[in-house]
Amino acid sequence: MVGSQQTAPFDYIIFGATGDLTMRKLIPGLYNQLRIGHIPKDARIIGTARSHHTREEFIELAHQALDRFIPEVNKDEAIICEFLKKIDYVVLDGTKSDSNWKELGSKLNKAPDDRVRVFYYSTAPHLFGSISKNLSEHKLITKESRVVLEKPIGTDSASANEINESVSRYFSEHQIYRIDHYLGKETVQDITAIRFANPFMGAVWSHEYIQSIQITAAETVGVEGRASYYDTSGALRDMIQNHLLQILSLCAMEAPNSLEADDVRNAKVAVLKALRPIKGESIRNETMRAQYTKGGIGDQPVPGYLEELGHDSNTETYALMRAYVDTPRWKDVPFYLRTLKRSTVKVSEVVVTFKPSANGVFKHRAGLNKLVIRLQPNEGLELFLNAKDPSSPIFSFQQLPLSGKFATVDGSPIPDSYERLMLDVVRDDPTLFIRRDEVEAAWAWVEPTLQAWAEDKVPMEHYAAGSRGPIAAKTFIAKTGDEWHENMKL
Amino acid sequence: MVGSQQTAPFDYIIFGATGDLTMRKLIPGLYNQLRIGHIPKDARIIGTARSHHTREEFIELAHQALDRFIPEVNKDEAIICEFLKKIDYVVLDGTKSDSNWKELGSKLNKAPDDRVRVFYYSTAPHLFGSISKNLSEHKLITKESRVVLEKPIGTDSASANEINESVSRYFSEHQIYRIDHYLGKETVQDITAIRFANPFMGAVWSHEYIQSIQITAAETVGVEGRASYYDTSGALRDMIQNHLLQILSLCAMEAPNSLEADDVRNAKVAVLKALRPIKGESIRNETMRAQYTKGGIGDQPVPGYLEELGHDSNTETYALMRAYVDTPRWKDVPFYLRTLKRSTVKVSEVVVTFKPSANGVFKHRAGLNKLVIRLQPNEGLELFLNAKDPSSPIFSFQQLPLSGKFATVDGSPIPDSYERLMLDVVRDDPTLFIRRDEVEAAWAWVEPTLQAWAEDKVPMEHYAAGSRGPIAAKTFIAKTGDEWHENMKL
Repeated sequence: MVGSQQTAPFDYIIFGATGDLTMRKLIPGLYNQLRIGHIPKDARIIGTARSHHTREEFIELAHQALDRFIPEVNKDEAIICEFLKKIDYVVLDGTKSDSNWKELGSKLNKAPDDRVRVFYYSTAPHLFGSISKNLSEHKLITKESRVVLEKPIGTDSASANEINESVSRYFSEHQIYRIDHYLGKETVQDITAIRFANPFMGAVWSHEYIQSIQITAAETVGVEGRASYYDTSGALRDMIQNHLLQILSLCAMEAPNSLEADDVRNAKVAVLKALRPIKGESIRNETMRAQYTKGGIGDQPVPGYLEELGHDSNTETYALMRAYVDTPRWKDVPFYLRTLKRSTVKVSEVVVTFKPSANGVFKHRAGLNKLVIRLQPNEGLELFLNAKDPSSPIFSFQQLPLSGKFATVDGSPIPDSYERLMLDVVRDDPTLFIRRDEVEAAWAWVEPTLQAWAEDKVPMEHYAAGSRGPIAAKTFIAKTGDEWHENMKL
Repeated sequence: MVGSQQTAPFDYIIFGATGDLTMRKLIPGLYNQLRIGHIPKDARIIGTARSHHTREEFIELAHQALDRFIPEVNKDEAIICEFLKKIDYVVLDGTKSDSNWKELGSKLNKAPDDRVRVFYYSTAPHLFGSISKNLSEHKLITKESRVVLEKPIGTDSASANEINESVSRYFSEHQIYRIDHYLGKETVQDITAIRFANPFMGAVWSHEYIQSIQITAAETVGVEGRASYYDTSGALRDMIQNHLLQILSLCAMEAPNSLEADDVRNAKVAVLKALRPIKGESIRNETMRAQYTKGGIGDQPVPGYLEELGHDSNTETYALMRAYVDTPRWKDVPFYLRTLKRSTVKVSEVVVTFKPSANGVFKHRAGLNKLVIRLQPNEGLELFLNAKDPSSPIFSFQQLPLSGKFATVDGSPIPDSYERLMLDVVRDDPTLFIRRDEVEAAWAWVEPTLQAWAEDKVPMEHYAAGSRGPIAAKTFIAKTGDEWHENMKL
């Protein structure tokens, strides 16, 4: 296998190369892809940033990043050495037309014109337009060029549109790769695999059998150093508009005609467009927001959000929405989208709760079947069935959990989500990237809620840091006949 | 829970009380039911046999049996002491009218007439008739009397009929409990629980999703000391006619109207009656028989069947039948019934193989879904799904096994199958016993095969002791598009 999935030669140009994301994800990701043979010999990685570093200094930074962020088992000095040789650096302010574009150009133009060129914008989104403009002015955008846009793409429809417009003046849509690293997670792709590669699952995947779907992303971390940025975003923008709605799309989409990028994305955008609008009076019933107050994670006391922030705020650190997909398949099935910071436990998971038997001898006696797709950590599946309690001569039931772990065949670590996405760009495969119409549909759906929350039309609930969220969330879900999945330990 | 399931007071009269089954299963089973509170204070257990023992001597035998056959964790000296006090013994030849019936009668008649009286026939089946006759003549059969018949109920339709007739002259059908200890296994009952208490399973439980069902009972033991008895029976009579056909019934039956004994047994017998006859020319194609030759289990060399027996024989130690249930639910789904002695491993299991996706994006790429119900040992469920291979950027699949164990809530040992069946008789619940029409339908279905085999119309295959059965079994199952489940390690 190794080697057979090697890409064509490429130049990877990273804007914001000295930033945290580059060091934590992009550099280690490219290293690992080289290690497993997916990156060809003459690939180049060119970091750019305003910081005055020599090539050697930047390579040293990259070396430190590898030391710190790749798992021990994946470290190989010879490959690290080979990898670092591919790295170059150009001091450049991407927003300034008179910056060092000539040096970048001369490096790039050493390679033939049809070589794949990837511009990775790991910068603030409001810079995407001017970087693109400068790349264009300096004639660095070739036919084989692609651009990767990091989130957040805007803070609402208008600003998202502005960012998209500013880039699309210089790149065509098929060259634009909007990254949502959740889609690169192996476990998120397993939603598609589980649904469509298992007749057993396909048989029950509709309102006929499914009662509800809970999609949760809970983090134990708070906002820490990022408080002032986070306060301009909030949980709904930070997690639901992008990651959780993408997961919902994968759970709810009809079978795509093929696995080609546009077939898959057509199927997903159809879900987003079929989301029943939440607006007006319904916002109070169908959404909930909250902030964490001081509490504790384990033995550690932690401050409340407002204390961390240092001033008052109506930004939520917990967001919950009840979504309905108005298609025949999902008639009246609630999807609960929930995210929180300072949760008891870190967990991202999809919990599918099945309806009770409509008839049958054990009606009312047995619990509900559930399928849990654990996205992270402890990646795997759990299926909760009912089995006979063997200590009783009559049929009384107990829950029988069947569980399995997602793992590589050879037991090696599951690749990080960024790695494969970075090479998908080289491979010209946008399947796992967000198309413009998806971004727009997602913003359109969350916007009335964002606005109502901004206008304080929905009360701000509170929860202690280290808890499972506000008490009121129990009532919220009970209204539609459900309860939070207990084993989630939230 | 303990105590709430206690039965009414009873007398348990065991014929063949000094035999292996009594010591190994019946005495330990009753002890354990006392231990968990299901047996009332004034219950009595009366052993009878021809051997001249005093009550004290028999109690000593029972004590030794407890020492030997109950798990350490279940031993409690106080309860053992209490249990042994309930035991009595009468020297009696049940087949002789002039035997010691008076003593048995005087013991029984100390109790009120409406006390539950269970006669357990743990003797050779040809004695059932004369014991019943003598019980009747000595007026020991009360309205609240029941009789338990041990297998084998005959060796063909005619002899089964004869045994049934000989007992039914003195007991009515509702008093007759034909035991098949497989039905008392918690895991066998779980077939019913899994099917009807889980909408997830109910959704796929038909020919629409199921490709085939393999039912296997494999033993590592040979015939050892039982060779001369076994040679009159063979694998088909010993295992398929009773145990495996019962399991097939539970797998294939329509939902019973209720869990009442007759509803369940009506549903089961409907399956047996819907079995497509195997007769004439089809016997050569739809059945296979074999004998083990010398080989090895682990490091241990073991002799072949004929060597153990000491003379030539055409009795099979391996039997395989391909059954079809001619109901709409099971249109063209093969059920493979297979049993063997001297297998590599001991395992009883049901393997449900699901059809590949009829359509969908991953058609042909993924393996088949399978559900394995492991009856013994390692009691539990395994569900084999397809998940994405995380080491590949494309959708290639690997098998993801979800597994769970059948276990008691408190981790205590799963009760032996005999225990609960013995008390079901007291409770007057024949659900897990074989009704006469079931015995008859089962014999009717296997009889043409038995006859053809006796007439050597089907070749005798061979397999080495310690193997998975004859090589030809692979071709046999491949003819209907299947292969033996590999994880069974047979």
